[in-house]
Amino acid sequence: MRIDANSVALHTPRGSGSCVIWLTGLSGAGKSTIANSLRERAMAQGMPVAILDGDDVRRGLSQGLGFGHADRRENIRRMAEVARLLSDQGLAVIVAAVSPMREQRAMARKIVGTAFREVHVHASLATCEQRDVKGLYARARRGEVAKFTGISDIYEPPLQPDLVIDTSSCEVAQAASRLMSAFDAWSLRDGSR
Amino acid sequence: MRIDANSVALHTPRGSGSCVIWLTGLSGAGKSTIANSLRERAMAQGMPVAILDGDDVRRGLSQGLGFGHADRRENIRRMAEVARLLSDQGLAVIVAAVSPMREQRAMARKIVGTAFREVHVHASLATCEQRDVKGLYARARRGEVAKFTGISDIYEPPLQPDLVIDTSSCEVAQAASRLMSAFDAWSLRDGSR
Repeated sequence: MRIDANSVALHTPRGSGSCVIWLTGLSGAGKSTIANSLRERAMAQGMPVAILDGDDVRRGLSQGLGFGHADRRENIRRMAEVARLLSDQGLAVIVAAVSPMREQRAMARKIVGTAFREVHVHASLATCEQRDVKGLYARARRGEVAKFTGISDIYEPPLQPDLVIDTSSCEVAQAASRLMSAFDAWSLRDGSR
Repeated sequence: MRIDANSVALHTPRGSGSCVIWLTGLSGAGKSTIANSLRERAMAQGMPVAILDGDDVRRGLSQGLGFGHADRRENIRRMAEVARLLSDQGLAVIVAAVSPMREQRAMARKIVGTAFREVHVHASLATCEQRDVKGLYARARRGEVAKFTGISDIYEPPLQPDLVIDTSSCEVAQAASRLMSAFDAWSLRDGSR
């Protein structure tokens, strides 16, 4: 078998791949729900999608990292690197992660390149706390969860997001439809579909 | 928008997803070449595939890790965790990584679960050194690359691999065909296609 250097790895210029849709927002804002719904729609259209969900990544890839500044940054860096790797192979990637700081998301954008799309999945703190799907807000209020975004740690909303979805005023299907339309438009513009 | 706990993340039992094909072997044995060829075939059949190539991962996700025992282990752990995450979403995953130690690959198998398939991409050290696609063997012989598998560090071949492909005695197309057949058989058996 002959092996040549060109076949050794998939070399594509940074950001030339499919979209990386980066969903940022408070816990309970609806990031994972929207990601799963978008994935189902895209897959039904024959478009392969990978989801990098913050909770899953914390349990696996980023096991052992904490919630201090450096560890949060490293967690985001790893997700961005994986997103870039997959996007370069033509997979659409949806990242669903609180990613509270602008600087962290700017780093992610730099790693991913021009394929990066920042989507603010927004709901007020009151709404997210009322939903409290994972019971984390109650625990954070009781002081049982340190550095919990929105309660004991800050969230910096994006200044110029590519899209904002307000989940207090729309249903899941609506939110997914809006994102799917944006995704189609981005993909067409990039020529990546 | 209502959010329920079930929609928060993709919860699938460990190892219930699509195959994770773990290609292990010396540098220059043909892992990346076979991975890319298999990916093209699978994609042509509408089967989404993600490649985790050791070289790419080293440049991105595992940037900053070295080649000592602990760092090599952490590098493999990260690849296995990402492979598992993607496999659980129904993507077939091909990992192409030297992954020289049995213990490292056993860890990867444990992380991935029953979807794990170990494939030994084999060529003799002499053959790999003669190919020397990346010029690394020459550099290792000159002592410029520390802990280079096969030269200054050991490679432990798998004891019970799911498949062995000897790339000194077959062409790329043949190797990819053999792997594609095995992949089809594994996928059918697991009911994951």
